[in-house]
Amino acid sequence: MAGHSLECDDLQLSSPDMERTIGIGMLGAGTVGGTLVARLVGESEAIAAKTGLFFDVRRIGVRDLDRPRPFTVPEGTLTTDLFSVVNDPSVDLVVEVMGGREPAGDLILAALQAGKPVVSANKELIAARGPELIAAAERAGVPLLFEASVGGGIPIIRPLSETLAGERITRVLGIVNGTTNYILTQMSELGESYPDALAAAQELGYAEPDPTADVSGADAAAKAAILSSLAFGTWIGIDDVYHEGIESVDPLDIAFAQEFGYAVKLLAICEQFPHGVSARVHPAMVPIEHPLASIRGATNAVFIEGPSIESLLFAGPGAGGHPTATAVLGDVIDAARETLAGAQVAPRIRFSPGEIVPYEKVSTAWYVRLLVDDRPGVLAKVASAFGDVGVSIRSVWQEGVDAEASLIVVTHRAVEGDQRRAVELIAGLDEVVEVASVIRVLGDAS
Amino acid sequence: MAGHSLECDDLQLSSPDMERTIGIGMLGAGTVGGTLVARLVGESEAIAAKTGLFFDVRRIGVRDLDRPRPFTVPEGTLTTDLFSVVNDPSVDLVVEVMGGREPAGDLILAALQAGKPVVSANKELIAARGPELIAAAERAGVPLLFEASVGGGIPIIRPLSETLAGERITRVLGIVNGTTNYILTQMSELGESYPDALAAAQELGYAEPDPTADVSGADAAAKAAILSSLAFGTWIGIDDVYHEGIESVDPLDIAFAQEFGYAVKLLAICEQFPHGVSARVHPAMVPIEHPLASIRGATNAVFIEGPSIESLLFAGPGAGGHPTATAVLGDVIDAARETLAGAQVAPRIRFSPGEIVPYEKVSTAWYVRLLVDDRPGVLAKVASAFGDVGVSIRSVWQEGVDAEASLIVVTHRAVEGDQRRAVELIAGLDEVVEVASVIRVLGDAS
Repeated sequence: MAGHSLECDDLQLSSPDMERTIGIGMLGAGTVGGTLVARLVGESEAIAAKTGLFFDVRRIGVRDLDRPRPFTVPEGTLTTDLFSVVNDPSVDLVVEVMGGREPAGDLILAALQAGKPVVSANKELIAARGPELIAAAERAGVPLLFEASVGGGIPIIRPLSETLAGERITRVLGIVNGTTNYILTQMSELGESYPDALAAAQELGYAEPDPTADVSGADAAAKAAILSSLAFGTWIGIDDVYHEGIESVDPLDIAFAQEFGYAVKLLAICEQFPHGVSARVHPAMVPIEHPLASIRGATNAVFIEGPSIESLLFAGPGAGGHPTATAVLGDVIDAARETLAGAQVAPRIRFSPGEIVPYEKVSTAWYVRLLVDDRPGVLAKVASAFGDVGVSIRSVWQEGVDAEASLIVVTHRAVEGDQRRAVELIAGLDEVVEVASVIRVLGDAS
Repeated sequence: MAGHSLECDDLQLSSPDMERTIGIGMLGAGTVGGTLVARLVGESEAIAAKTGLFFDVRRIGVRDLDRPRPFTVPEGTLTTDLFSVVNDPSVDLVVEVMGGREPAGDLILAALQAGKPVVSANKELIAARGPELIAAAERAGVPLLFEASVGGGIPIIRPLSETLAGERITRVLGIVNGTTNYILTQMSELGESYPDALAAAQELGYAEPDPTADVSGADAAAKAAILSSLAFGTWIGIDDVYHEGIESVDPLDIAFAQEFGYAVKLLAICEQFPHGVSARVHPAMVPIEHPLASIRGATNAVFIEGPSIESLLFAGPGAGGHPTATAVLGDVIDAARETLAGAQVAPRIRFSPGEIVPYEKVSTAWYVRLLVDDRPGVLAKVASAFGDVGVSIRSVWQEGVDAEASLIVVTHRAVEGDQRRAVELIAGLDEVVEVASVIRVLGDAS
């Protein structure tokens, strides 16, 4: 029980049921974990009134005992011995919000093997070791929930794996990294360069001092792996997700995109093809009338397509201590409820073996901006280079008539390998000074 | 099992587990029910591969045995004896998609009392008899799920009652009726009159031949009752929801709204005030930059606000056989999974007694359009009428200078009762020809 006040407050509730008190063990108490503990301690009566469940934070594993925390817990609750949290017999349910693959993975396995439900916010770990952890949860007959691993406070894991369990989902598109969406929004609305927009994002705390995980697309790739696996029922690990970041996006291309009716977004794209599934992350030109085009700043959004549901949009805060802690808390309540029901819980989703389409075989349309010498015949040569590898051109624009003119080519869909070969051929042409940029263009689902 | 093909297909699955076959009893096989049966029969292997569960539709209760159906089931599956569906010992789980309060309510109670999980899409029944049905499910220890009752294919019930169970939700705004949103979109984009837009919606099948339930706001009111009850944990019945429809919305007011930066939407508004909760449905002017302002056509959307999650948007198809059947199917899978786990299932949400704020005491800003004689002093008289009842004016526009001028007043927030008294006073002024229209203006959450 979370403090002295429950003794009297209990009386107001229908049943001050000790069997409905759940001992929580926390692994990590940083931004998300600290917020969660503060809420479990401070709002325990409100949570009990709404859910009938009492949560008591009994052990908190941290790296540094002396760091200031946004909560007060009894002496001895904090420990640096993380396995002691998992093994504490008074801990009924383990919340892992420490991040990273290890030791988080082994701690979760130990908790599951001890028959304790686990709630995790760790996208990197789930995307890397998901099948192993899910199988361990199934063997133990306890829930392993990870709503907070994708989209922060946006409920997306549960809708995908429960409400839409009977849907043949064809495609999931996501803006699942707030840092990069913030930077691209600033570049788009203020015309800022990438370095300036990144610096502004770091100033405001939207980007880390080392922004690599976000700007490289690696964070989004882990989330794409999870979304894709749940949407299609074929497990895709993080290493199966092709990713490109936003480091080379030029404000000039954003401006051209706007002119042609597109917004540039870092998209996670999960697709079900007839011959397999694919998940990838890269900057993409999104038609301005698409709901994802208007997702601004650090907001995240996930867009789900299927034959029956047509399309669904979920949007909200994709990160931050409070939204993410809300998602974790929802899982904690759900896991506790299932466990108290005394069930040997069946897994929410089964994964079947399936083909993963290699990225070189995935078909997309490309926007290619070339710096060219403005000589007669350059367009014909560029066009024939595309034609030589079987990539057909949808439209061409020429900008500027000086020594350095820009030629902008938008192709029809063709497989990645062919598009790359075309661009290599073009880069080798005498008339082409530079392939200044390449951005894929979002089309309809296959 | 859904047909002969399972004998061989089973072998491909991890365990052709007869204990994982669930006998389904259907109450209703119309648009939603017919689609659902067709999918349960036609996609049973795909569902089994993804969930590990086999569904076998064993009894289907209908009004008319001879009506053509989009599915084929064995002779004798269809019956007009609805209670025989519920009581059939081979039926493990009951799906109620017949609509209406009775006999649906008594059928559901009978199913729950027999220990059978129930999935319902019946907003009207849940909004009218929710607490009684939920209590019966709790006593029986089986799930009663109703994801499809609000927002068709949009997952909203489960996110509200599970993922957000730990959030102190402050406000829920919803466009939860596709018919009226379609009509308002046509009026707004084409300048059509209400009767013309309604006729077009009827032509396209977006509106019923008798459109009353939709256009009066009654359908949205039932959904507002459910959303509000789940969001705040205080039960609000359908009779506690004030509602106004769109019948008197004038394209002129939509045009004025656009000029001032607003869109006119039929909104369900659920609010948590310090002294209680409120749910209501009425046309409202929504600031054009609000995500709900850009929800077009028959699309539905729900916008949830809370201190931790800030705001979440869910949007998608709010009606139609396929999307709604997907939501029902998600519930069927979830209920089957819980039941097979052998659990005495704890309810997902508890309702506590709480105050319901009467609508006369709810505070909103008003847009009032008056037809006035263009005499000197009319503005002063109108302003002092508002002032007399304590309603303060935010802005005034005067349009036209002929005998019939329009005076448009937008007030600050004031309680409904005072706003109404002000408008009554104004209607009685000699200079006022007519109070042509009144539309509430959406403000920030209290």
